[in-house]
Amino acid sequence: MFQAAAKTLSVFSVYRGVLFSLRHYCKNIPIKLRVSEALSGAELGANVKVQGWVRSVRPQKKNLFLHVNDGSSLQSLQVVGRAELDDPLLTFGSAVEVSGVLKKSTHQKQPFELEADQIRVVGTCNPIDFPFKIKERHSLEYIRQFPHLRCRTNVFGSLLRVRSEATAAIHSYFKNNGFVQIHTPIITSNDCEGAGEIFSVQSSGPQDVDDGNFFSVPTFLTVSGQLHLEVVSGAFSRVYTFGQSFRADNSQTRRHLAEFFMVEAEISFTQSLEDLIKVIEDMFRSATEHVLAHSAEDVDLFHQRVTPGHRATVDAMLKKSIPVITYTEAIDILKRSSENFDFPTDWGCDLKTEHEKYVVKHCGNLPVFVTDYPYDLKPFYARDNQEHSERTVAAVDLLVPGVGELCGGSLREERLDLLRARLEDAGLADTYSWYLDLRRFGSVPHGGFGLGFDRYLQCILGVDNIKDVIPFPRFVQSCLL
Amino acid sequence: MFQAAAKTLSVFSVYRGVLFSLRHYCKNIPIKLRVSEALSGAELGANVKVQGWVRSVRPQKKNLFLHVNDGSSLQSLQVVGRAELDDPLLTFGSAVEVSGVLKKSTHQKQPFELEADQIRVVGTCNPIDFPFKIKERHSLEYIRQFPHLRCRTNVFGSLLRVRSEATAAIHSYFKNNGFVQIHTPIITSNDCEGAGEIFSVQSSGPQDVDDGNFFSVPTFLTVSGQLHLEVVSGAFSRVYTFGQSFRADNSQTRRHLAEFFMVEAEISFTQSLEDLIKVIEDMFRSATEHVLAHSAEDVDLFHQRVTPGHRATVDAMLKKSIPVITYTEAIDILKRSSENFDFPTDWGCDLKTEHEKYVVKHCGNLPVFVTDYPYDLKPFYARDNQEHSERTVAAVDLLVPGVGELCGGSLREERLDLLRARLEDAGLADTYSWYLDLRRFGSVPHGGFGLGFDRYLQCILGVDNIKDVIPFPRFVQSCLL
Repeated sequence: MFQAAAKTLSVFSVYRGVLFSLRHYCKNIPIKLRVSEALSGAELGANVKVQGWVRSVRPQKKNLFLHVNDGSSLQSLQVVGRAELDDPLLTFGSAVEVSGVLKKSTHQKQPFELEADQIRVVGTCNPIDFPFKIKERHSLEYIRQFPHLRCRTNVFGSLLRVRSEATAAIHSYFKNNGFVQIHTPIITSNDCEGAGEIFSVQSSGPQDVDDGNFFSVPTFLTVSGQLHLEVVSGAFSRVYTFGQSFRADNSQTRRHLAEFFMVEAEISFTQSLEDLIKVIEDMFRSATEHVLAHSAEDVDLFHQRVTPGHRATVDAMLKKSIPVITYTEAIDILKRSSENFDFPTDWGCDLKTEHEKYVVKHCGNLPVFVTDYPYDLKPFYARDNQEHSERTVAAVDLLVPGVGELCGGSLREERLDLLRARLEDAGLADTYSWYLDLRRFGSVPHGGFGLGFDRYLQCILGVDNIKDVIPFPRFVQSCLL
Repeated sequence: MFQAAAKTLSVFSVYRGVLFSLRHYCKNIPIKLRVSEALSGAELGANVKVQGWVRSVRPQKKNLFLHVNDGSSLQSLQVVGRAELDDPLLTFGSAVEVSGVLKKSTHQKQPFELEADQIRVVGTCNPIDFPFKIKERHSLEYIRQFPHLRCRTNVFGSLLRVRSEATAAIHSYFKNNGFVQIHTPIITSNDCEGAGEIFSVQSSGPQDVDDGNFFSVPTFLTVSGQLHLEVVSGAFSRVYTFGQSFRADNSQTRRHLAEFFMVEAEISFTQSLEDLIKVIEDMFRSATEHVLAHSAEDVDLFHQRVTPGHRATVDAMLKKSIPVITYTEAIDILKRSSENFDFPTDWGCDLKTEHEKYVVKHCGNLPVFVTDYPYDLKPFYARDNQEHSERTVAAVDLLVPGVGELCGGSLREERLDLLRARLEDAGLADTYSWYLDLRRFGSVPHGGFGLGFDRYLQCILGVDNIKDVIPFPRFVQSCLL
C-alpha cells in the first residue's frame, strides 16, 4: 500500500516543478531573484522578490531608498519605495524581503532598480550593538576582531568571492591540463619533512582506544601532501591536490598560519626543473588572469581601497615571463649589496625573509624563480645535482613581492641507490621503506611543487596580513570559533 | 648589471616557447603525447613520444606488442615494435618511453597504435617482488594491502579518475547555481555536535607553547563545517564547502572512516525543508549524470567487473524523483513489517542501519528522503516544528541502497529565543554566544545539509567497502603512510 503512495508521490514530484512555475504566472507570485540576477536586468518588468541584508537606508520625503545585498555580488540592488514603506526596523544589517517590479533606473551607476510594493523585515539588527556602522569604512584590523560577523562587510565579502573564484580557477587550470585531483589525507603517520613544528592527533572523548592511540601509531596533521602525491604519480603522470596543511609555527608574522591552504602538483617524466617552472608559471598566470577577468569588481575594491596602486604591480607580474636565477647567483647579488642583513649571506646559508625581499627588489620588484639550492638545505627527497661542481639539489622557489616565498618545488630523487643512501644516513630507511618501494617498481624522473594559496591571494590582492585572506585564521594562541 | 641579465633572460623566455616548437619540426624531435591524446588520434602520422608504465608485454616472432598506460585513461595505448626492440627489462609495471609514429590500427577495439622506433626502459620492475601480477585480476581486499602501490592497478586507477571527476562535477553544480565556496577550517575550538567521538589536536615537537596548548584553548578536528558555513550564510545566501571531516569512531564497518570527505551547503531564506530537498536531489542527479557521461569507461569497469548489474540500480535512481516520507511514516513501515529487528522501532527511537536498510528496500530499493525527526534525536541547531502535534524538528536524511544515510540536513533554528532556551538547557549558551549573535543581527530562515562524498562514490559505483573509494583510508588502528 505504501509503495503505491510513494509512486503517487513521485509522479506528483515530476509535475511539481511545472505546477510551481504555472502557479507563479497565474497568481502573479513574484519570481525570486538573486541580487546579481536583478543587477543584470533579469526579469525586467516582472513582479520579482529579492531577499538580502540592508546595506543602506535613505528615507526621503516622498520615497524610501534601500540598498540590499545577498552576497552574490559586491554591488547592492537599489530599492525604491513609497515613504510609507519605511519602518524603524529597517536598519543597517537587518534582513529583508522585498517584492516589486524590476525597472530600468535613471541613474547611470545603477542600470536597474526594484520598485517596491512590499518590504518585510525578516530579521532585525540593533544598530547600537552591531559592531559595524553604516557608511563607516572599518579597517581590516578592526573587522578581524569579529570573525563571526566580518563576512557582512563589503571588503570581506569581496575577499570570500575572490577566494572562491581563485579556487575554481586553479581547479580549471589543472583539469584543462590533464591533471587528476587526488584527495591526500590530513591525518598522517609520516613526520614528512622532519620539521618538528607539527601537530599531533589523539582521539578524545569516552571511546578512547589504547590510551588515545586510536590509530595504534603516532599520528600528525600533514605538513604536505607531496609524499602521498608521489605514491599516485607512480601510475598517473599528472596529479594535484588542493587542501589544508599545518605547521605548529610559534611565530606571529603577517604571512604564517598554523592551518593554511596549499596547491600541490606532481609531474612524472620530467626532464629538468624547467618542466616544473613552466607549470608553476602557467598556473600562476592562468589563475590570475581568470580572477582579474571574473572577479573584476571585487579585485578592484582591494586595488583601489586597500592597497591603492597594487594593480600596476599585478599587471607588471603578468607582462613578462618570470626570470630564473640560481641560488648561487642570488647569493652573489646579496654579497654585492650594501645592505646590512641580520643573517649571514654565505654560500650554504638559508635565504631568510630579508634576503628574499632584497632579491625580489633587485629583480625589479617582480616575481623571480631561484633554483639549485645547497644539498644540505633541502629535505631528503630533493634530487641531487650530481653534475654540478657545488653540491646542490634541483629545487626551485618562487619569490614574489610583498610575500616572499610563494611556491617551492623540486625534482625528486628517483634513483633508488641515492635515495636509499640518503635515508640510511638520516636513519629513516625503515620508516620510509614504502617510499623506497616507489623507486623499486617502475621509478621515473618526476618532480612537483606546492603553492601557498593564502599567500597567493595576498600577492594578487595586495593584502598585507595573511589573516585577512582566510575565513577562519588559526595561528599561535588563536583559534576562534 | 644583473638587471640587464634578467631582462635578457626574460626576453629570451618569451621566445623559448616558439623556439621549442620550431626545434621540434626542424629536428623532427618527437611530440610528447599523453596516452589519452594518442588514443584519440592526436598527431596522427607524426613522430610522437609516449611515456608510461607497461601493462602488458607480448613478444611474437616478428613483432613485440606492449600496452602502455600513464593514468590519463583506463585504456592503454598499444605499441607495436620490431622483435629486436624486446628487452628482458620490459616487464609488467616497468616505466618506458616509446618513440615512433602514431598510426591507424587495423583492430576495431583500438583505433590507433604507436609503431615504435625506440623503446627505452626508464625504470625497472622486478615481476617477482611486485605484488601485482600480469593478467591477474586481484580482489579489492588484496590490493588494499598495498596502499602505496594500488593506484597501479586498473581498478584503483579508475576509482581515482572517477573520484576526481565527481569532485569536479560537484564544484560545477554549485558554481552554476550561484554558490560561493568557503574554506571552512579543520582545526576548531567547537566541539560541534557534542558527539564525543572527536580527535584533539596538540602541538608536538620542540617548539611547544604552554605545554602543548598551542592555541591557548582546547582544539579538535572538525566534525562538520556547518557552524562555520552558517557564519557566512549571514551575508551570502548560498555557500558550500568540500573537504575533510573527522570522527574518532571506534568501529570497523564498511561505511565508516575516521577521516572522510563531506560536501556541505547552507542556504539562506529557505521556506521549508522542500527547498533543501530540491538542492540535494538536484546536486545528486547533476553530479551523477556528469560522472556517468564523462567517466563512462571507468564507471563501466565497476559496473561490469566489481558489482555486475549495479548500473541498472543507478539508472533506476535517476529515473524518477526521490520520494519523501516522514520519520513517523518510516516508523509505521517498520512497525508493520514482520522483520525481527535488533533495535526497537518505537516512535522516538533512532533509525539504525537495519531500519534504514528496510525502509530503502520497502521503497523499491531506491533512495528515499526521511523528514521531521523527533526533537530529542537531533542537535541543538535543528529547527523546532512547533506547528506539529508530535515534537519534531525540520530535519531530513537521504537514505540510499547499500549505503544507508548518504546525506543529512535540517532547517536551522533562526529564532533567537528558541535557540537561546535550547542552548541554556544544554549549558552551552556561553560557549555558543557567537552563534547566538548570528541570530541577533539580521537572522534569516536558513538550512543546510552534508553529503558523505565517499559514501556517494560507494553508492554510484556499487563498491561495498568505503576503504576502496578513498586513496588513503584512515580508520581505527590503521593510518598507513
